[in-house]
Order: sequence, then C-alpha cells, then structure tokens
Amino acid sequence: MTVSIENWAEQVRAGDVRAISRAVSAIENRERDAEEILRQLFPFTGRAYRVGITGAPGTGKSTLVDRLASHYRVEKKTVGIIAVDPSSPFTGGSILGDRIRMQGHATDAGVFIRSMATRGFLGGLSQATRDTTLLLDAAGKQIILVETVGVGQGEIEIVRLADCTIVVLMPGMGDDVQSLKAGLMEIGDIFVLNKSDREGADRFEQQLKGILQLVPERDGWKPPVVRTIATENKGVAELGRQIELFRKHFEQAHERQAREIAHWKEWILQLLETRLMERVAGKYLGEKELDAIAAAVAERKTDPYGAVNEILARAGLGEDH
Amino acid sequence: MTVSIENWAEQVRAGDVRAISRAVSAIENRERDAEEILRQLFPFTGRAYRVGITGAPGTGKSTLVDRLASHYRVEKKTVGIIAVDPSSPFTGGSILGDRIRMQGHATDAGVFIRSMATRGFLGGLSQATRDTTLLLDAAGKQIILVETVGVGQGEIEIVRLADCTIVVLMPGMGDDVQSLKAGLMEIGDIFVLNKSDREGADRFEQQLKGILQLVPERDGWKPPVVRTIATENKGVAELGRQIELFRKHFEQAHERQAREIAHWKEWILQLLETRLMERVAGKYLGEKELDAIAAAVAERKTDPYGAVNEILARAGLGEDH
Repeated sequence: MTVSIENWAEQVRAGDVRAISRAVSAIENRERDAEEILRQLFPFTGRAYRVGITGAPGTGKSTLVDRLASHYRVEKKTVGIIAVDPSSPFTGGSILGDRIRMQGHATDAGVFIRSMATRGFLGGLSQATRDTTLLLDAAGKQIILVETVGVGQGEIEIVRLADCTIVVLMPGMGDDVQSLKAGLMEIGDIFVLNKSDREGADRFEQQLKGILQLVPERDGWKPPVVRTIATENKGVAELGRQIELFRKHFEQAHERQAREIAHWKEWILQLLETRLMERVAGKYLGEKELDAIAAAVAERKTDPYGAVNEILARAGLGEDH
Repeated sequence: MTVSIENWAEQVRAGDVRAISRAVSAIENRERDAEEILRQLFPFTGRAYRVGITGAPGTGKSTLVDRLASHYRVEKKTVGIIAVDPSSPFTGGSILGDRIRMQGHATDAGVFIRSMATRGFLGGLSQATRDTTLLLDAAGKQIILVETVGVGQGEIEIVRLADCTIVVLMPGMGDDVQSLKAGLMEIGDIFVLNKSDREGADRFEQQLKGILQLVPERDGWKPPVVRTIATENKGVAELGRQIELFRKHFEQAHERQAREIAHWKEWILQLLETRLMERVAGKYLGEKELDAIAAAVAERKTDPYGAVNEILARAGLGEDH
C-alpha cells in the first residue's frame, strides 16, 4: 500500500498509531520521507507541553512516567512518551522491561509510547528526539514526556529543549554521586524525591533543599522538591500540580517570546549541524575511513586539518569555496 | 614585513614569542594562514603533556596555575598557559586581573601565557583552544596548562581532550554547589582542595573522598585529593608529583594506543563539525538571518527543516546532493 505524504500526514494528525509509528521509524532511520512529513506537520505544532524527565538508573523514572501519564489521562489529556537511551546503540533490555510495566496504556489510544536509541557513529539521537517531539505535538498529544535513561551529557542535551525538566532522585546509597553527576542541579525545574518511603529520605530531602537554596533562581522560579512513591502512585498528583504551576509561571513571564526565539535559534543551529554531519561525514567519510585517518594522525603520518580539508573538498566545500 | 608561512612556522618552532602570539591571533580570528601554519607544525607535535584545570570561579585556579608553572620552571621544563573563558565574548576583567598576578613569568621566555574568549555566534572556542594546544606543543612547550574560567558544559568540552584533568575545589560556603555543578566528579583525574587552611577543609576532604570512592575507577586509576594553599605555594610540588604519577600510569597502560586513536577520532569529527559550521553557517546564514528565521519559525510562518534546507542548498548541499 502506498499513501501520499499528504495522506500520511493527515493520518498522523488524526492520531493514527500506525501512521505515527511509521513516521518515528522514518525519523530514526533518517529516511527522506521523514523530513517531508515533518515539514507538512510543522504548522500544526506548538500546542503540546514537553516535559523532560532525567535521573540516574534505578531511581524509578519509568514507573513515575507511567503514573504521570495515567494522571494526565484521568484529566482527559492525550500523552506521548519518548524513552531515550543515549548510551545504548539499540533499544536494550532494561527499556523493554520498563515498557512492559507500561502495558496498562497499551490499549489506550490516548497514549503513544516509543523507545529510541543511538544509531551509527554520528549519533543524531538528540535531533531524532526533537523531531519526534514535533511529530507527537502535531499528532495532538497534549503532554509529551521525554524520559532519558542514564545520566550524562547526551541526556542533558535531550532534556534541555523541553519546556519543563524534572530531575528524579532517590534516598539511599549513591545519592550523592547521582546528584553530583552531570550538572543535574542546574537543569532541574522540579526535583522529585522518589522512593521517598525509604530510609534516609528526610535527611536527603533536607540536603537537597539546602543545595537548591544556593543555586541561583531562574526568572523568579524556585525549583520545588516533590516526594513521590511512584509504585504506590503517591505524590504523582502533586507532581502534576507543580508542573502546571511551572507552566503558568512561564506563560505569564514577560520574556516568553524572547525565550521562544532563543529556543528556535539553538534548534536551527543544531539541525544544521546534524544535517551537515549527515550529508558530509555520512556520505564522504564513513566510520572505517575515520578509523584509518585517526590512526594515521596518531602516528603523525597525516595531519587532521589536511584530512578534514580533503573531506570538505569531496563535499564541494574546499578551501576556495 | 612579510614572511613566508614556512619561516613563520620555523620561528614558532624556535619558540619565538611574537611568532607564537601572531599564530594564536590568526587561530582566534579564523584566518586562512592559521590552518596552513598548523598543518606545517603538526608533524612536530605530540611531545607536550596537556593538563586541563577547571573549577568554579573563586577557587584560586589562576594562582594555582601560576605556581604550577613555576614548579615546572624549576624543573627546567618549558610551559604554555592557555586561559579560556567560554562564557565571555571577550577577554574580560577577571582574566586580566589574574594575568597580572602572572607577571612573575613575564620576562621568562620559557613560559608563554595567553587568554582566549568566545568570538561570534558560532562559538568555536573549543577548536581554537585545541589548535593553540598543538601550536604550543610544536613550539616546544613541554607542559601545556589549559585553565578554564567558570564551570559549565563548554569547560568540560575544553578540558576533556587534555591528557590529565585537574578539578579545583575549596572549602567553605557553596562547596556543595560547586562540586555538584557540571559533572566535575566524572572528569577529574586529580582533585585539588585549594585554600585548604580554611575552616571546614578536613570535613570537605572527607566528604570528597567519600564521594570519590563511589565513582567507578577508570583504567585502574583512583583520583587522589591534593590539598594546596596556592598563595603560599603549599602542596604544589605534591600536585606536580601526582600529575607525573598519572602520566606514568597511562603511559604504561596497554590501551594507550587505543586511547590515542579514540582521541583523534573525536578530534577529527569535532574539527569537521566546526569547519562545516564556519563554511556553511558563517557564509550562508549569519546571525541576523538566524534571528529572523527563528522568529518566523516561532510564529509558524516557516518551518525549521525548510529553512535549514535552503541554507544547505545555498552551500551546494541540497537534498539532491
């Protein structure tokens, strides 16, 4: 069966699960159709609220995302969930395991769930995630939950362009390390202390609040700490309430338009960078040649500038360009 | 006076301060000559040891770098110092103030000092710093100290390709935040507790050591904590000793060649990315047009994919490329 891109875009806008799934696959596999459908859908974006959720493995992020989705479903809001694993070259076991827990939503057409992982040596996962966010936005999902598995620079890049970023922590051994990792304190708009029935939760909450007092406020917002026990659905409504408070806080802020434009400036530069690397490195370099060049450079048999110039020249972007 | 690039490169290799300064300026200003001289000098690189030094403002990094330079001068080693400020669009007051303290080295031809800051909307500071490191390497500097001012993702990128990374902390208010910021725990090969005569130093050292025990070891190296009082030159020799231990540890490691090749793979991809953005965004986009496109995208008057495609087409990298 062949459908025109126009029809396909129509189906996505109508919320057709198969059409959406096929479009996400096209985005992941960098098919040419992907960009065409995204262009057609773009005018219908800008209505979804994007919530990024990050935190170390084992903090219960997936369960929390699951419960948060249910919370929004009770409010009759449609939900999209994107689970991203920047460290994995494929969608691995733990995500699959997590997704199984989410099967409560499997028969609910109001929830779309998708896992995404890194493909190829050029990465590009951030861009694929951003594209998928726009896709689900156009598909009418009112809330888009972007969950990153693991902690690192990749995750920060992924959640940075969300409207609201939630950092999930938990009490117990290793807390200090988790919170130390990857500048989480700087990116959190809301902090969740999950598994808050565990020993040491009170002490940890106090420490966390002490630290947050020292972090400079952004635009008059003071990041709250929400205690949850996701497995028992405790604190989830309060989390939903804080997300709503944060949304309203920034909708009323005067600098909203300036923030939007700054957001898109960065988005456009990142898209340009991704496309340039795809079209030039993907086409004129390749991973095998990169290995060979790196080995030659390490031995000083060639220099990196000359090697890069040669690739640029192949792409018609030589020095005299 | 015009000199050929060959003569200029010769002067750099001979350690001529004016020739080196002029080459750093050419790198900063992205002059075409810069790449030519770097290519000529590349075969003579690979001998310097690059030490990255990062930490929050006020921890005394600059004084420490100053003392470390003196330490190496006593050992008759030549030193290059690059002070980088990713947050500043120009070399600002505090760096200038710091550099004044360094004037003890001003008449010492064995030390080359240079501050670098961000220029233009495309950034490119990481690449300029990496280029300058190679330049000073070819100029015969045996130790290159790369100091970043401030803490953030830019700094991490800058110090990440050093041979050894030192994270500077200090006791007192705000420590927790400083150490929490930007994933410093993950990048440090050696931790310095500067101003260690201040109150709370012992407690802070214990906390830090506790945290470091939980961070996974990399290749059998356990990051030490070195206590210093840089203003009194205390602990600096011990820091020098730890840097030497770290260097030897990795020279003996079996995976050294694999590390070198991985290092250059990343270096080459980053150089390619920088060049692509310079040649395409710098030439066919410009900051003003980016502002205009971002505003139009924010209002959904245009879509980002189409806008980026147009820029790619202008550069001869259109969809049918």
